[in-house]
Amino acid sequence: MPPGRMDLNSDLGEGFGQWTLGDDDALLGVVTSANVACGFHAGDPVILRRVCERAAAAGVAIGAQVGYRDLAGFGRRFVDVEPDALTQDVLYQVGALEAFARVAGTRVRYVKPHGALYNAIVAHEDQAAAVVRAVVEYDRTLPVLGLPGSAWLRLAAEAGLTVVAEAFADRAYTPQGALVSRRQPGAVLHDAGEIARRCVAMAAGEPVTDVDGGPLLLAPQSICVHGDTPGAVGIARQVRTALTDAGVTLAPFA
Amino acid sequence: MPPGRMDLNSDLGEGFGQWTLGDDDALLGVVTSANVACGFHAGDPVILRRVCERAAAAGVAIGAQVGYRDLAGFGRRFVDVEPDALTQDVLYQVGALEAFARVAGTRVRYVKPHGALYNAIVAHEDQAAAVVRAVVEYDRTLPVLGLPGSAWLRLAAEAGLTVVAEAFADRAYTPQGALVSRRQPGAVLHDAGEIARRCVAMAAGEPVTDVDGGPLLLAPQSICVHGDTPGAVGIARQVRTALTDAGVTLAPFA
Amino acid sequence: MPPGRMDLNSDLGEGFGQWTLGDDDALLGVVTSANVACGFHAGDPVILRRVCERAAAAGVAIGAQVGYRDLAGFGRRFVDVEPDALTQDVLYQVGALEAFARVAGTRVRYVKPHGALYNAIVAHEDQAAAVVRAVVEYDRTLPVLGLPGSAWLRLAAEAGLTVVAEAFADRAYTPQGALVSRRQPGAVLHDAGEIARRCVAMAAGEPVTDVDGGPLLLAPQSICVHGDTPGAVGIARQVRTALTDAGVTLAPFA
Amino acid sequence: MPPGRMDLNSDLGEGFGQWTLGDDDALLGVVTSANVACGFHAGDPVILRRVCERAAAAGVAIGAQVGYRDLAGFGRRFVDVEPDALTQDVLYQVGALEAFARVAGTRVRYVKPHGALYNAIVAHEDQAAAVVRAVVEYDRTLPVLGLPGSAWLRLAAEAGLTVVAEAFADRAYTPQGALVSRRQPGAVLHDAGEIARRCVAMAAGEPVTDVDGGPLLLAPQSICVHGDTPGAVGIARQVRTALTDAGVTLAPFA
Repeated sequence: MPPGRMDLNSDLGEGFGQWTLGDDDALLGVVTSANVACGFHAGDPVILRRVCERAAAAGVAIGAQVGYRDLAGFGRRFVDVEPDALTQDVLYQVGALEAFARVAGTRVRYVKPHGALYNAIVAHEDQAAAVVRAVVEYDRTLPVLGLPGSAWLRLAAEAGLTVVAEAFADRAYTPQGALVSRRQPGAVLHDAGEIARRCVAMAAGEPVTDVDGGPLLLAPQSICVHGDTPGAVGIARQVRTALTDAGVTLAPFA
Repeated sequence: MPPGRMDLNSDLGEGFGQWTLGDDDALLGVVTSANVACGFHAGDPVILRRVCERAAAAGVAIGAQVGYRDLAGFGRRFVDVEPDALTQDVLYQVGALEAFARVAGTRVRYVKPHGALYNAIVAHEDQAAAVVRAVVEYDRTLPVLGLPGSAWLRLAAEAGLTVVAEAFADRAYTPQGALVSRRQPGAVLHDAGEIARRCVAMAAGEPVTDVDGGPLLLAPQSICVHGDTPGAVGIARQVRTALTDAGVTLAPFA
Repeated sequence: MPPGRMDLNSDLGEGFGQWTLGDDDALLGVVTSANVACGFHAGDPVILRRVCERAAAAGVAIGAQVGYRDLAGFGRRFVDVEPDALTQDVLYQVGALEAFARVAGTRVRYVKPHGALYNAIVAHEDQAAAVVRAVVEYDRTLPVLGLPGSAWLRLAAEAGLTVVAEAFADRAYTPQGALVSRRQPGAVLHDAGEIARRCVAMAAGEPVTDVDGGPLLLAPQSICVHGDTPGAVGIARQVRTALTDAGVTLAPFA
Repeated sequence: MPPGRMDLNSDLGEGFGQWTLGDDDALLGVVTSANVACGFHAGDPVILRRVCERAAAAGVAIGAQVGYRDLAGFGRRFVDVEPDALTQDVLYQVGALEAFARVAGTRVRYVKPHGALYNAIVAHEDQAAAVVRAVVEYDRTLPVLGLPGSAWLRLAAEAGLTVVAEAFADRAYTPQGALVSRRQPGAVLHDAGEIARRCVAMAAGEPVTDVDGGPLLLAPQSICVHGDTPGAVGIARQVRTALTDAGVTLAPFA
């Protein structure tokens, strides 16, 4: 199969007030889609403004990284919020980010839940449906990004939304295509060369090696890279270079 | 002068979570413009959703009641936030509210600062300019509502925005047309009949009586009524009835 | 059995900033123990100060009503906070309340978790243990208040804490002594006379009627009454009067 | 004058949730007094616990670094909070920190306001008095740390509190002993050797050079060093070494 197109997405704008996290400027030179935190678990208006302006200038698509209202927990703890309230929480976050995207001359291009919400709506039907409802109500043309096989993507597709499946550059997968739990050894890959090779294989439509050593075909439309440590940015750069060298066109899916 | 048109505005959506404040449903039967709190000093996504839906259904214009980020102080304490950060805080709030206005089939129609921010930008040029900048960047066609003679309205007009001057139904004015400080006796009027008569005079382009007993011509395009107490809602209703009885057409300015 | 002693507890201090909830002053004339919200799900420093001063003046024992960090949800949504973080969250809240209790000339006398945390630690062993650990570390002599049969009281007892079992004045019980779910009809009692009679029976060591009509012996050391509606305060008053008329001495357990 | 004793204080525990700031562990090897953020402008319960335990283990005195309730602004923006509310805000913060100090086997040893509050109460009599009142009410034996000549220290002294004057290791002073404004060139010193020499002079009771080149006698009981950048920690270490080499005994003032 000839090399095609691939999107690289990463979390940006995850500081708050005086506190910084990750290197947004470095990542904007690497990714094609920026999952921008919207202020409920991270991000504040000054950061949103800055990230949106720079993403727009760099031609990076802006996505709404929506999460639970939990600054103290960085959105990484499940909150049993009522589905109706969750719908409104998502609408609020998307709308807030949209203001900055518009001022930067662009739009919010997609929605990707964050952290514990991302994990919850793999299986939590009510919360998944609540997030889907928010997107349907806000703008039916807005794609949603998530884990293949999740309730989130299934319900979004059923609701007529465009669903975009992602794979993780640095995570091991089971033979069934599920993520190996972070509690298991080998769940997270650290070898930049190996990570880059896997990403090239994904982009070429070729199998990667699963955690048991067998071939596993992942067919993501976007690959998620991390940027919250200096090492992570280096790996993300290597992924980009390897994809480009393999003739893959890097471009936003949205 | 023949009776004309008048707008009645009031603060709505000022609860938070489990806590309620004021009677939004009652007020939506009285006012023509709803200053909806956007979550920084009051209001949460569930409340924003509900108020926007009901305002849209009632034909009441939705305005962004933007404030300082200060839930604990209800936006009633001056915060010396940097102008650039204030611009982004306002954009964030307007964008969040816009999501709910759009889902309700309408738009944010105007911006009215709240509480300590409202008071600060009467004279604080830097903060006034910061709020003006937010509106200019977001949407130059959005009117702004405020106090005649304020830096806020002056700078907004200089920036090409549509400015709408309001008067307060239940506040006494000095001969110079300034509000009598709440610390002075007689600053707040309590007689519903008198308040209603003053509002009819304002709508008819006739003078009201200032605090010293002389005539004062206020020419507001909108009259602000309060609804945070049961008595206040009753006064607001009486103002509406008196205006209607006088042949004044009540309609949103926006 | 001769009439003995009984404690009446209720939630107080549950406003925040501009927002009020319940009638603290009325309740302080009814209860003997005040579960004071500590600022994470409700309550702010001004409210804590006021409630502690008035409770101390009224001879009402002050307890720490600790909850999840969730103002927007009023602590009524489960948060999957890590046990170690939960321990620190509880310590923080108890310490903050202690400052106001001390200034009022008294001390925090007990700990009672609130809302979703109360419900979670009926069965969630790790979170129950985390709250127990906070109390053990803070002050081993501090009693804890909760639901008989809960992991919370069991683990507290195992850790050597003094456990105090409460019953709810206005809730129906199953034959096994569990609360009837609020989703079931008849879960909440509304007849003030019936509620008062049940409380007198509890205080006298006599059985009440369970949801199926059979006798059920509840032996609480404290009875929880509500005060978040005007009707609730009236019921609470009637409970107090009935107990007093029956010769029961109302006094804090702590 | 023979070398005497000196206290070195610095801000610690200024992260929040996922976000870190400064190197607390490194600073605990340098300072003798830790100004621990209490959760209103920075700091969360997990961080408070950790800092208190390590400070106690290192023999470093724990002080309450109280600030405005302003996480988004890191307590660096003036908030016009009512004095009574400010008193309660301070009590709340001191009480919360006290819980962790006690669990760590020690006590809160002093109070030092942070950021915009520190600056405000140099001249803002009402807010200064409000913070003094909190300390008086909480514990009259608790020393307070601050700027010589400030309303804060003056009112604290008048109220019978023990006042401790500090000097800043890396700040230039006017001939009158005031800090050179950060907006002026030369306001912040960067030469580690010079900074260390100035600190040795302060400890020896000898004059330092003011911004105009003249001699200025500062007689601080504590020197404030910074630790929020890697360079700052290096400078702080050099200050400690120079003081020790000069025979100064480093010990908490409290």
